[in-house]
Amino acid sequence: MTVATAGRPLANLRVVECATYVAGPSGGMTLAQLGADVIRVDPLGGATDNSRWPLAPGGASLYWHSLNKGKRSVTVDLRSPVGRELVTALITAPGPDSGVFLDNNVARSWMDWPTLSARRPDLVHVHVQGHRDGRPAVDYTVNAAAGIPDMTGSEAGGAPVNHVLPAWDLLTGQTAVVGLLAALRHRDRTGEGSHLEVALADVALAGVAALGWYADAQLSRTDRPRHGNHVYGSFGVDFPTADGGRVMVVALTEGQWRSLCRVTGTGEVFAALEKALGVDLEDEVSRYRHRETIEAVLRGWFAARDVTTVSRELEAARVLWGPYRTPTQVVRDHEADPAASPLVEVQQPGIGRMLAMGSPLRAGGTADPPRPAPVLGADTDAVLADVLGLGSAEIGRLHDDGVLAPVAADR
Amino acid sequence: MTVATAGRPLANLRVVECATYVAGPSGGMTLAQLGADVIRVDPLGGATDNSRWPLAPGGASLYWHSLNKGKRSVTVDLRSPVGRELVTALITAPGPDSGVFLDNNVARSWMDWPTLSARRPDLVHVHVQGHRDGRPAVDYTVNAAAGIPDMTGSEAGGAPVNHVLPAWDLLTGQTAVVGLLAALRHRDRTGEGSHLEVALADVALAGVAALGWYADAQLSRTDRPRHGNHVYGSFGVDFPTADGGRVMVVALTEGQWRSLCRVTGTGEVFAALEKALGVDLEDEVSRYRHRETIEAVLRGWFAARDVTTVSRELEAARVLWGPYRTPTQVVRDHEADPAASPLVEVQQPGIGRMLAMGSPLRAGGTADPPRPAPVLGADTDAVLADVLGLGSAEIGRLHDDGVLAPVAADR
Repeated sequence: MTVATAGRPLANLRVVECATYVAGPSGGMTLAQLGADVIRVDPLGGATDNSRWPLAPGGASLYWHSLNKGKRSVTVDLRSPVGRELVTALITAPGPDSGVFLDNNVARSWMDWPTLSARRPDLVHVHVQGHRDGRPAVDYTVNAAAGIPDMTGSEAGGAPVNHVLPAWDLLTGQTAVVGLLAALRHRDRTGEGSHLEVALADVALAGVAALGWYADAQLSRTDRPRHGNHVYGSFGVDFPTADGGRVMVVALTEGQWRSLCRVTGTGEVFAALEKALGVDLEDEVSRYRHRETIEAVLRGWFAARDVTTVSRELEAARVLWGPYRTPTQVVRDHEADPAASPLVEVQQPGIGRMLAMGSPLRAGGTADPPRPAPVLGADTDAVLADVLGLGSAEIGRLHDDGVLAPVAADR
Repeated sequence: MTVATAGRPLANLRVVECATYVAGPSGGMTLAQLGADVIRVDPLGGATDNSRWPLAPGGASLYWHSLNKGKRSVTVDLRSPVGRELVTALITAPGPDSGVFLDNNVARSWMDWPTLSARRPDLVHVHVQGHRDGRPAVDYTVNAAAGIPDMTGSEAGGAPVNHVLPAWDLLTGQTAVVGLLAALRHRDRTGEGSHLEVALADVALAGVAALGWYADAQLSRTDRPRHGNHVYGSFGVDFPTADGGRVMVVALTEGQWRSLCRVTGTGEVFAALEKALGVDLEDEVSRYRHRETIEAVLRGWFAARDVTTVSRELEAARVLWGPYRTPTQVVRDHEADPAASPLVEVQQPGIGRMLAMGSPLRAGGTADPPRPAPVLGADTDAVLADVLGLGSAEIGRLHDDGVLAPVAADR
């Protein structure tokens, strides 16, 4: 029941990560935030995600530095047999808190399960894929195939709308960590290793299936219509305010619906409407069916108030709502009251002061602050010394042979 | 290294879940899919998510039955002291594989950490919230506040676009499970319990922060423009095909870009363009900057072919792409070749044959098939007998007293 240690429940665990872009790296970052020593391995000079947008004014990738917080960075010539042997040795290093590997490599047979498990049979290996047959896929392609863009956007129709959030990437990262920790418990108890695979395309299909949306299409034989910004199956929609602001208001439960009617003074209008339409708006399905009428009745209340007044009154009435913000508004809200903000500025080598956030998991009411990302390759020598026990002469020779390289100066 | 058992790495673990809607229940479902005995506790008659849309033709919730697959269902009068004591006893039942609790309750003080940990100090308790101060929030409200709808939709502008996928709910569910399993490893090693909290609003902010998007807004002091269906920072966009189909095509890497140019026969056009514009389109940032020109050059190739031809040629050329499908198309593709589909029909009590999917985590190359959801309350007597050791006379008395109730007939 020690709150302090429970914030870093994976202290002592060592994980080797060979992954790029969002899914694998966000999973590795989650493990690092829970206290694990996560060693991200990259080729000399970095992988293809190393310069991904957005960039800081000085040119460093804000994306890379945001997704690799709290890890150690090792770079090795992955084409050389000696480099491959070093990485294999890191992955299969002995001990109950080692031998845990997260990757998203395609066609690197020296890093596959048969090869690695021959070296360490109790390895826990989680392999992130695009499709389960090994073909590549990214968030945008699996999202289109899962049917989400077809449901997104205006009721008026038109082309499907891609959403910008790489939701499946982030979800795949967490799913990979779930598998990894479950397999680790299995190993802790039985001594057995595991080879788990998780494909982005499967995460997307499983996610949509979990909402019942494919079963609905199967049983109704119809695609559900788009409904713009309305919540499906209940009442919720956005309202513009007098000053050009916008809020999202939702009434899933009877209590939330009553609060909304009370604060907007629309109880009598809706009572009359219920009588006229022969419906009970305390039933969420009726609210969904009559969503446009409800929206029209409520609109005037929001249009007559600025967003500050709306927010104060909705909060006091315990309505379920949220403001629309742009990223710069999120930043301004943080800067207006940093102590109340979940975002934190970190001093990031290569960038400077930069907004970041730690794990959303809080232990005993407190959140660990985020740590910066490593400088690419900066931990190579230290990791080879402390994990593999290499001496400085051996490490020097690896540098001379070009298997290792000097750390690039801060960008 | 036993593939068979590694597919159910949490066999023997017992988890009590008191949660509703998507986040908590999807987390509990994940634990059940990994082999845990997950006991979902509801009030008599079910919670507010029990009839959430979409519905089967007979009226049962496809949503509820999709999110609660593989669990056991217990219903108890949660307002009665005796009912509360039964649930408390289930949550705090002794043993290294018990005492794990996932909830999203608001203001049920009899179920909070101080009360429960007084009964079992080594409890692992993960509490899912809306906001970290306890105020309610849902996916739609936190998504608006995180800035995503402002970036979604047409370059032409207009109101923000809500996406329909409850991405933060699903991500919060997996994050909760990550915390739960990490805390469980901590308990396995040290004997210490944990109280973890995770707020939907924090998951959203942390998710967007992990992409560097707030750091970008902070350092550039500007909001990034909407870019319709284009991928941000690289090249990717949707193309209509001759027969009214649509595909999403992405070229993040040089190799993917070269494949796309080769199959579409546009290499010479782009070489001339590079010379005219003074840019190197093998650089993804240049592809992003000239995305509309690239899209215009490529459009004709797609417009001249039906989706079957496009798909065959892109696949042969190893282009990174995916089809757009609607949910009914996903279902038809499943029905055309069920053996190749990750979706599986389950026989769901109360509904009948219904499409579902198991865990996207595969062990040793195989995926466990999904199990149906329980009938609401159907496992109450069995759970009280096997977890709490109650005899049939005691259980009968609880029924007589109205603390328990008969299982509703199949709907």
